[in-house]
Amino acid sequence: MTEVVIAGIGQTEVGEHWSVSLRELSLQAIEAAQQDAGGLQPQALFVGNMLAPTLSRQAHLGSLVADFAGLTGIEAMTIEAAGASGGAALRAGYLAVASGEAEVALVVGVEKFTDQVGASVEEALASSIDSDFESAQGLNPTGQAALMMQRYLHEYRVPRQAFAGFPLTAHANGAANPMAMFRKAISAEAYHKAGPVCEPLNLFDVAPNADGAAALILTHPAMLPPGFPKPLVRIAGSSLLTDRLALHDRPDPLSFNAARLSVERACRQARITPLQIDLFELYDAYSIYAALSLEAAGFASRGEGWKLAQDGSLRLTGSLPISTMGGLKARGNPGGATGIYQVVEAVLQLRGEAGANQITTARRALVQCLGGPASTVATHVIESFNYQDGQDIQDKKGDQS
Amino acid sequence: MTEVVIAGIGQTEVGEHWSVSLRELSLQAIEAAQQDAGGLQPQALFVGNMLAPTLSRQAHLGSLVADFAGLTGIEAMTIEAAGASGGAALRAGYLAVASGEAEVALVVGVEKFTDQVGASVEEALASSIDSDFESAQGLNPTGQAALMMQRYLHEYRVPRQAFAGFPLTAHANGAANPMAMFRKAISAEAYHKAGPVCEPLNLFDVAPNADGAAALILTHPAMLPPGFPKPLVRIAGSSLLTDRLALHDRPDPLSFNAARLSVERACRQARITPLQIDLFELYDAYSIYAALSLEAAGFASRGEGWKLAQDGSLRLTGSLPISTMGGLKARGNPGGATGIYQVVEAVLQLRGEAGANQITTARRALVQCLGGPASTVATHVIESFNYQDGQDIQDKKGDQS
Repeated sequence: MTEVVIAGIGQTEVGEHWSVSLRELSLQAIEAAQQDAGGLQPQALFVGNMLAPTLSRQAHLGSLVADFAGLTGIEAMTIEAAGASGGAALRAGYLAVASGEAEVALVVGVEKFTDQVGASVEEALASSIDSDFESAQGLNPTGQAALMMQRYLHEYRVPRQAFAGFPLTAHANGAANPMAMFRKAISAEAYHKAGPVCEPLNLFDVAPNADGAAALILTHPAMLPPGFPKPLVRIAGSSLLTDRLALHDRPDPLSFNAARLSVERACRQARITPLQIDLFELYDAYSIYAALSLEAAGFASRGEGWKLAQDGSLRLTGSLPISTMGGLKARGNPGGATGIYQVVEAVLQLRGEAGANQITTARRALVQCLGGPASTVATHVIESFNYQDGQDIQDKKGDQS
Repeated sequence: MTEVVIAGIGQTEVGEHWSVSLRELSLQAIEAAQQDAGGLQPQALFVGNMLAPTLSRQAHLGSLVADFAGLTGIEAMTIEAAGASGGAALRAGYLAVASGEAEVALVVGVEKFTDQVGASVEEALASSIDSDFESAQGLNPTGQAALMMQRYLHEYRVPRQAFAGFPLTAHANGAANPMAMFRKAISAEAYHKAGPVCEPLNLFDVAPNADGAAALILTHPAMLPPGFPKPLVRIAGSSLLTDRLALHDRPDPLSFNAARLSVERACRQARITPLQIDLFELYDAYSIYAALSLEAAGFASRGEGWKLAQDGSLRLTGSLPISTMGGLKARGNPGGATGIYQVVEAVLQLRGEAGANQITTARRALVQCLGGPASTVATHVIESFNYQDGQDIQDKKGDQS
């Protein structure tokens, strides 16, 4: 199978873009990615989006975005998998290049929440869980996360305050990211005082919905012009898996089973163990999700994921940096674009272009986004890649020592 | 690249399924396809759907359908490209198998219009054209098709009655299809007397929105057990392309440019010319679409597609049978499922399982579905395939003589 590299990245600032349309946001990200990739022309476009048909009354984003970006005529489709839409779109782009059907693929994640407000947004978001058996009963994703957190606190006898480390880490990292929605560190005291959103979740346990677009250009190394100026990053592992959709159908509501399997599969393809990754862009839509994701990936035992957020391990200087550019919590969560933002940020780290957020050793990243309560999980391992000699920069065996 | 074959097909009756949910409809089609394929187990699911997030308040169909079908854990995503969603989902499944990432892929198209009625359906359908510049001005896909037909009648000085052949052919074929929504032939007089839907389109120029689900199982031939009982059909050509989304942005509103290019590309991959196909499952959502699709594919000159519908060429006994099981017009148009129904029907023809609708020589089919006014076009060439000797049943050079 063909090697797939990420040759270009682009992103818009995340936030409330009242005056910028869905197509304009997409264009901004695409232009940035195309400039970054030195003008490689894509033959295929995969758009990751969750809610445009409901919130913007616009479906058919493949044709819309291709057209507006001056790429009329190329292959295009929209990929949806709730919060994992971005990761699933990357997966689709990866398949197109890996199969040899596209030499260059463009993957765009875009979401615009500000076209609508309040109840209609909540209703649209509730369509990502089981409509007949969950949302019809009044449950929404935030209420569901609250139930999971309450169960976690109860089952593991963990104090409420134990989750503070996740938003504190995310906000500390977001402070220096010029693309982040919230660029302000928060204190443990602020977390303690924050008002409830849905008990036991407080304001800082919930990532904000936001507008944004991010883009990736994928290709195979042979397509790159000689002397390609950017450090290369390849997709070493790609996995998309599902779990039972409804929480009540799962034998264990505190186990992100598909996340566990998806990490295993992506790492197996990359021929690494999770311990060999240098950073983990995880899906901290809720702080409980961050804890469960760390446990599913094998970085912490059951019921102990929160400890990593307390002892400093997850900071930029720690042994397992997460949410290095602010995560969903501080960078913001632009729905179907989030999975692409995560990859853009991981590429910045691997290239050494993460500025004040740069971690010291960044050769390999694990990137994961979740749809529903990990009902869909997209996991990718991306790593630095030296095409000249056809090998990774990093010797994997040496890594383990 | 790996050869991709269609090892199983399944479909539900098309119609108004008031008492059957989205997931139940999907399951019926999947079970039929799995039975047909002798129990091949898929690793990946691609769901083609247009409107579930708006009409059923249910997104995240990948996880939902995989879960309900007892396939929990497999890869899954939803593919949307307006009316071309089914064809785009097939394309995604094809890429997954061709890349080697999935040994067996399941492609399901599903749509349920009857969860909502009237204005909300029209509003949802209008999201498939340009929301900011077309639907916001009151245009919807039917109004747009009416504008195109009016222009066609004017520009080519064709009488209104010239289009009768399309619905007459479709209804004649649908009469014997047990899965069709309308199983009744119509007369030229009925067409003549039919009331207007949107001038100059009358009731019989517009395919009915309907509920339905259809499924395909794709794999590579080496995965088939020895003595696989079904005649094999392979995907010989696969193409997905886009055009300008908005009709007013096109230099020529009567040319389905992406359809022309998509047919060219799919045929080039299949190493055939369009003249070598034995049937054409085209996208007759409106009779004007049928005429323009025939012209785009090169079967008729500009302004003359309607003539083929008058001289009998398009009937089951003609030189270019279309809509052989009733087409969108008589089988019904279940949105994102339509592209999969078209392939199921073409496979029935190639296998010799089309019953009363069987055409005499059926070795190769062109299947095409359209999103918006051919703003997205998915075209596939599928053909009979004899894996035992690694060659097509048909010698292609002999074909041309």
